[in-house]
Amino acid sequence: MINSVQNEKIKNYAKLNEKKYRDETNMFIVEGLHLVEEAKAYGIVKEVITTNPNIYGTLVSEEVMKKLTNQKSVVEACAICEKLNKKEITNKILILDTIQDPGNIGTLIRSAVAFGFDTIVMEACADIYSSKVLRATQGAIFKLNIINTNIVEFIKSLKEYKVYGTSLKNGIPLKQIEKSDKLAIILGNEGNGVRNEILDITDKNIFIEITNMESLNVAVAGAILMYELK
Amino acid sequence: MINSVQNEKIKNYAKLNEKKYRDETNMFIVEGLHLVEEAKAYGIVKEVITTNPNIYGTLVSEEVMKKLTNQKSVVEACAICEKLNKKEITNKILILDTIQDPGNIGTLIRSAVAFGFDTIVMEACADIYSSKVLRATQGAIFKLNIINTNIVEFIKSLKEYKVYGTSLKNGIPLKQIEKSDKLAIILGNEGNGVRNEILDITDKNIFIEITNMESLNVAVAGAILMYELK
Repeated sequence: MINSVQNEKIKNYAKLNEKKYRDETNMFIVEGLHLVEEAKAYGIVKEVITTNPNIYGTLVSEEVMKKLTNQKSVVEACAICEKLNKKEITNKILILDTIQDPGNIGTLIRSAVAFGFDTIVMEACADIYSSKVLRATQGAIFKLNIINTNIVEFIKSLKEYKVYGTSLKNGIPLKQIEKSDKLAIILGNEGNGVRNEILDITDKNIFIEITNMESLNVAVAGAILMYELK
Repeated sequence: MINSVQNEKIKNYAKLNEKKYRDETNMFIVEGLHLVEEAKAYGIVKEVITTNPNIYGTLVSEEVMKKLTNQKSVVEACAICEKLNKKEITNKILILDTIQDPGNIGTLIRSAVAFGFDTIVMEACADIYSSKVLRATQGAIFKLNIINTNIVEFIKSLKEYKVYGTSLKNGIPLKQIEKSDKLAIILGNEGNGVRNEILDITDKNIFIEITNMESLNVAVAGAILMYELK
């Protein structure tokens, strides 16, 4: 049993609460028994850490568990996981440009799984491997192919896909857009939308017809687009 | 200029940060110059309170402003407002049953305005007049007819409306639902959905077809329903 927060392994694992260290090591922490079990089912768990002697894993004190996790109360278990390897790109892709709110990212991932958009391409977004986003998505993230990369380069590399941006200015109404077997939808920053350099290289840019409001919440807009074009 | 947080009027206004007192007095506070201007445009402002001598209103110290508002930083102005009177019920109605998360309520209100659902009927939901929901909706609330009432009684009082519940069990797929000029859509609690006693008295209960996930976020589901049936 590990009782000391000064333990070298614990100190290293605790660094995974920072994005910088997650990026360097390609690892992250999931918190809570439900997420630990989900992660195990996907074969990405390197080590289970627990305060409960009945759970298989490295036994630690409550103080050590608190150092590793971001929960207000002590969780029974957490797990050190390896980030998923890139799988083949699927027919339906959701591209996220500079989306900052972890709640929006979490809701978008939940909707993406629900509507079969199994590849998520991100640039400069809130980190999907933060405890807040992981909690919000409740395991949905493990079902997806997540790629952090330059969006402009990624779009240029796509063959046979329809690539649709979203724009409040000069967009085409969603109801006029045709479906496509191979499809990528791009959503942008909460305040500024999709960057112009990206909008310039899409096949079409879409808007959702609304009245009396300037815009929809980005997670709402994304869900409507995925529902309609899936 | 009011400098003292012990001032009787200020002490009374500060109580409006509690739902109980808002319910008793039919008043609420909006925070920030943008929302104050929006509220003025709708004729519901009783008194503007400000730390800026150039703004028309009751001048107060920063300490007094902090007591009145829930912002981390001092806002330039807030306003004491009267809750909107009931207007005539519109053709499109959104009914919210026991929705608890202020963020979900705020996002639903923003979508309701955007899709022309101008009457919101609520029972046992997070308070729409809390500073968190008001901030999230950024003035959208002033455009709507908000009614807090017993949902079962309200539905029974509706004539010529199609009333659609939402349910993950035994629902009809959204794509099979016909539009209607007069329409009410019911959304339910984040964990438990719409109460059975309500589902029992609807015309139909709808579900949105999804894969690999148990459910959608309620604000996402609501937006898709309003977009599709508007």
